[in-house]
Amino acid sequence: MIKRALKSIITASFIFSGAALWAGDDLPAASPDRMQSHIEALSKFGANSDGGVDRVAYSDADIKARAYIIAKMKKAGLKVHIDYAGNILGTRAGKNSALPAIMFGSHIDSVPGGGNYDGDVGVVGALETVELLNTANITTDHPLEMVIFADEEGGTVGSMAMAGILSEAALGDVSASGYTRGEGVDRLGGDQSRLKDAKRSTPIHAFMELHIEQGGFLEAKKLNIGIVEGIVGIRWWNVIVEGTANHGGTTPMPGRHDALVAASKLVIAISERATGMQGNQVATVGKISAFPGAPNVIPGKVEFSLEIRDLDSAKIQHVFQVIQDEAKKLEDTLGVKISFQASNVNIHPAPTNTVVRTLIEDSIKGLNLSYQYMPSGAGHDAQDMAPITPTGMIFVPSIGGISHSPKEYTLPRDMANGADVLFHTLLKLDKTNF
Amino acid sequence: MIKRALKSIITASFIFSGAALWAGDDLPAASPDRMQSHIEALSKFGANSDGGVDRVAYSDADIKARAYIIAKMKKAGLKVHIDYAGNILGTRAGKNSALPAIMFGSHIDSVPGGGNYDGDVGVVGALETVELLNTANITTDHPLEMVIFADEEGGTVGSMAMAGILSEAALGDVSASGYTRGEGVDRLGGDQSRLKDAKRSTPIHAFMELHIEQGGFLEAKKLNIGIVEGIVGIRWWNVIVEGTANHGGTTPMPGRHDALVAASKLVIAISERATGMQGNQVATVGKISAFPGAPNVIPGKVEFSLEIRDLDSAKIQHVFQVIQDEAKKLEDTLGVKISFQASNVNIHPAPTNTVVRTLIEDSIKGLNLSYQYMPSGAGHDAQDMAPITPTGMIFVPSIGGISHSPKEYTLPRDMANGADVLFHTLLKLDKTNF
Repeated sequence: MIKRALKSIITASFIFSGAALWAGDDLPAASPDRMQSHIEALSKFGANSDGGVDRVAYSDADIKARAYIIAKMKKAGLKVHIDYAGNILGTRAGKNSALPAIMFGSHIDSVPGGGNYDGDVGVVGALETVELLNTANITTDHPLEMVIFADEEGGTVGSMAMAGILSEAALGDVSASGYTRGEGVDRLGGDQSRLKDAKRSTPIHAFMELHIEQGGFLEAKKLNIGIVEGIVGIRWWNVIVEGTANHGGTTPMPGRHDALVAASKLVIAISERATGMQGNQVATVGKISAFPGAPNVIPGKVEFSLEIRDLDSAKIQHVFQVIQDEAKKLEDTLGVKISFQASNVNIHPAPTNTVVRTLIEDSIKGLNLSYQYMPSGAGHDAQDMAPITPTGMIFVPSIGGISHSPKEYTLPRDMANGADVLFHTLLKLDKTNF
Repeated sequence: MIKRALKSIITASFIFSGAALWAGDDLPAASPDRMQSHIEALSKFGANSDGGVDRVAYSDADIKARAYIIAKMKKAGLKVHIDYAGNILGTRAGKNSALPAIMFGSHIDSVPGGGNYDGDVGVVGALETVELLNTANITTDHPLEMVIFADEEGGTVGSMAMAGILSEAALGDVSASGYTRGEGVDRLGGDQSRLKDAKRSTPIHAFMELHIEQGGFLEAKKLNIGIVEGIVGIRWWNVIVEGTANHGGTTPMPGRHDALVAASKLVIAISERATGMQGNQVATVGKISAFPGAPNVIPGKVEFSLEIRDLDSAKIQHVFQVIQDEAKKLEDTLGVKISFQASNVNIHPAPTNTVVRTLIEDSIKGLNLSYQYMPSGAGHDAQDMAPITPTGMIFVPSIGGISHSPKEYTLPRDMANGADVLFHTLLKLDKTNF
């Protein structure tokens, strides 16, 4: 709080310039306490002994949490319905019902053993925005639609369905809940048999998502807000290193063609090359197996996963090329064979809308908050919305950068900052033509 | 064959010196064809489609192969019985029944997906030796005992029982056959309830084992015979590398504490340090897992196996110390924690008897064969016999150094060389007092 007060003095001129444009000092401010109480209420649904939640999509805990939020949405005056994909939509009429709606929201399902802020902060922030509109007695020109997407953690299922890019086949896969996605959608009040109709048929003016950063950048830089430049693209490969399996006791060290020694060199090269390059690209090896996998047998084959993420598809391809070059060198020097099998994970980067980014930036300045542009390394529903409507995304700090863990934490003050930025940006979007 | 003929001419003088001492030219020679036909007969028990055998101890295939060998032993005049551990013993009376027996043999059980030579060559060679004794009409001073040890591949179970070092608890473990070792011993005609009585109660004059090398040393050096200096000691550790698990998308490369990158550096250091040292030590990492083990999560923990083998316990300890020092350096530079948990695999080196080695060497010279002293990197029943009786071991070449594989192969001529050396050495042992 002291930090903010000091900052207010330093950049006070911006406040008044903001106020001049938007009567910002007349607008109500988000309540950290109210937001925190909703976070705490949500944290009871699927609570586990570690202080986090097991609230995977389609589970009983998910369904109960959705009922809690629906009740709060109705209390805030929203007209609530469930679409065919199980997404919750709460509408607030605008002055001109012929205008396309401004949509905003996030998700409340968690990963197994998840925390209390991933998704929830965006939903609670969206609810807070509606409260602020009510408090200020504002009716926007555009209709508003608050959204809670279904099954974000299982692969942004609800937003993919809304964007019309979810395959029928995906509904057959068993989700973390034990139900297939299709059964799960039905449990949420959707209708898996009408997947095609879940695709949004009416235009959306813009989409906004508030979310925790899930990384440590904002906290480390002592910044209030991240303006998301886009959700990074993700590509996965299965890397196979083939050497010669042999008896660990009878094969002298010099003559070995140890697939694990070769794989280890490639793992290090991947890390070093991705670290050494300019930019925000990341490359991760998260999974590895050696075959036959006995302590007394020299591995003849190693398989490991490779993931590369960046906001630019060409950069992902460049990093992959550099890694392939390193593999070629190892093949030549170690007498092993290295191959890369592309997996079906190939998510294209989803840049946010440049106009929306500017409106977020203007709102942040008006609110006298500190910020920086940044990519989102994690996937979000916003990535599916970006191709179908002008999309913006707001990050608030994650303490310690921890996410997908019971230790996930965001300060109430930071949540309220995010809701303020969302509220102010919505008002600007309402007056913007794309 | 041409190679041997040439060699015979070059070193013809040795033949006659051997002949002078042992009437070597009067002794019959092992038959490559007869040995090969036994190998081919054995290969039918548990034959798999890859050309190898699945003849794990205690399986039906193992029991049928034992019946085949028992019949051949009886046909060769041996008096056969099964001890409490399921070991097959075939006795041939000596001139002096008060003298301790000379024991020789190997095993016929295989690893899953094994080959046709590991163990079998030693058993067929022992049988051949009995045939040669019969042909030459020789009665030794000492009684002779041909042995087929039970369950060598499952951990030299039969020889450990004979040496009195097999624990009761080990009988409860389920073997590759699906039966517990104890059930398996009963299936072989032993009696698991009398494990203690399986310990050899009468002294043994000496023990000899013929075996394939299972490595590529002899073939590469174009040598006929390896005189085994001993069976290396083996120690296993579970190595645990702890870093920090984090989101693979939102955690920038520079701030990562990736347990797999650290583990990879240690795997390379283990290989390079063990290779760079003087000596025959080997260090192997055969098994590795990263946790949590998802392609999009930076590994927070990696576990891998470490095996070190050498003929000298102090050398094993030295190699381990060098590896621990490398781990310490990585801890300091990478901000990870590395710990080593000793496993219960801690087999002490088993040097062979120096007098027996000299008798083997004399026999080889008498037979005009080439040879070298070498350690056995693999475990053998001889390692359990070495502490209780003067023990010697003879290696013959494995083509390509391949073992524990259907591709395992030893030339009939090489098998016969081994049987000749075994036969000549037995005759010398019979005249030796320790």
